[in-house]
Amino acid sequence: MTTAPLSRRILFSWRHFSGVLRDVLLPNGKPVTTFTLEHPGAVVIIPITDSGSIIFLSQYRPALNETIFELPAGTLEQGEDPAACAARELIEETGFAAKNLIPLGKLLPAPGFCNEVQWCFAATGLYPASAAGDDDEVIEVREMSINEAKRLIESGGLIDAKSIALLMKGLIGGLVRGE
Amino acid sequence: MTTAPLSRRILFSWRHFSGVLRDVLLPNGKPVTTFTLEHPGAVVIIPITDSGSIIFLSQYRPALNETIFELPAGTLEQGEDPAACAARELIEETGFAAKNLIPLGKLLPAPGFCNEVQWCFAATGLYPASAAGDDDEVIEVREMSINEAKRLIESGGLIDAKSIALLMKGLIGGLVRGE
Repeated sequence: MTTAPLSRRILFSWRHFSGVLRDVLLPNGKPVTTFTLEHPGAVVIIPITDSGSIIFLSQYRPALNETIFELPAGTLEQGEDPAACAARELIEETGFAAKNLIPLGKLLPAPGFCNEVQWCFAATGLYPASAAGDDDEVIEVREMSINEAKRLIESGGLIDAKSIALLMKGLIGGLVRGE
Repeated sequence: MTTAPLSRRILFSWRHFSGVLRDVLLPNGKPVTTFTLEHPGAVVIIPITDSGSIIFLSQYRPALNETIFELPAGTLEQGEDPAACAARELIEETGFAAKNLIPLGKLLPAPGFCNEVQWCFAATGLYPASAAGDDDEVIEVREMSINEAKRLIESGGLIDAKSIALLMKGLIGGLVRGE
């Protein structure tokens, strides 16, 4: 299904974000004005240790002024291949490299107002590696068993949607083993 | 942890969205400029039928120019209670009302750049109800078994992060029964 925009107006651009208003025709023929935050896309990685636990991050997020648990993730640089981005972000954020990066499809974090696509990967065969971290991020690594992650989801201590969704993808695909 | 913004500049406002640049101090003391899409918050509902299947929507999303499967969801109106919003959106989007709306905590769809909080509910004891639909939305209702939803997640036919995450919450909490 394709609907060409009737008009397009850029409200702002900042770094890799643009806010755009478009007049489009819905599939039912009705014209509407829609807001889209245009985003270059991102990767999310579920790093699985040899013993089957998961490497999460505890990360300060200025947009919420909170420190939350998340899986490693990062924004695609211009023209960057998602697998290359995943390998780069994994090292930068966790200090581990992976022998295997297994594609786990896509997620849409905010389809109501944002065109971001998140490319998902499982990382296995982890080994220590070092890279210059991103100085604009405040991150700590936290390894968890699957049971601990499930308890945190139930208690409200893990509420990041992409992380919970990718854990579910890993469980369904059999890469992550429920206990 | 609280960090007051050093400065705040509104890039744009449109309906319930605002794009804001703020200079803040990170917990490590480093000053950074961050972009936040300010959002009033939303609800996501997992409607569970008496036979244990789930009511999804097939919904056209202009931001992606795609029709995707999602759980019912909607944005909070000003001052609106999340449970009242969930009851309203459930009827508007699915044509069902619920005897029980069970809170399932929160999700963060895009903590990297958006302060949106999604309040989650399971809806049970469903019965037909009618309400004026939102004319700006093109929606069809689609009932699925848990197995069908899991197969769609595995095949890439269901990629909406909030929907997969809330299904996981329902499974962990025992409200949704895996087959």
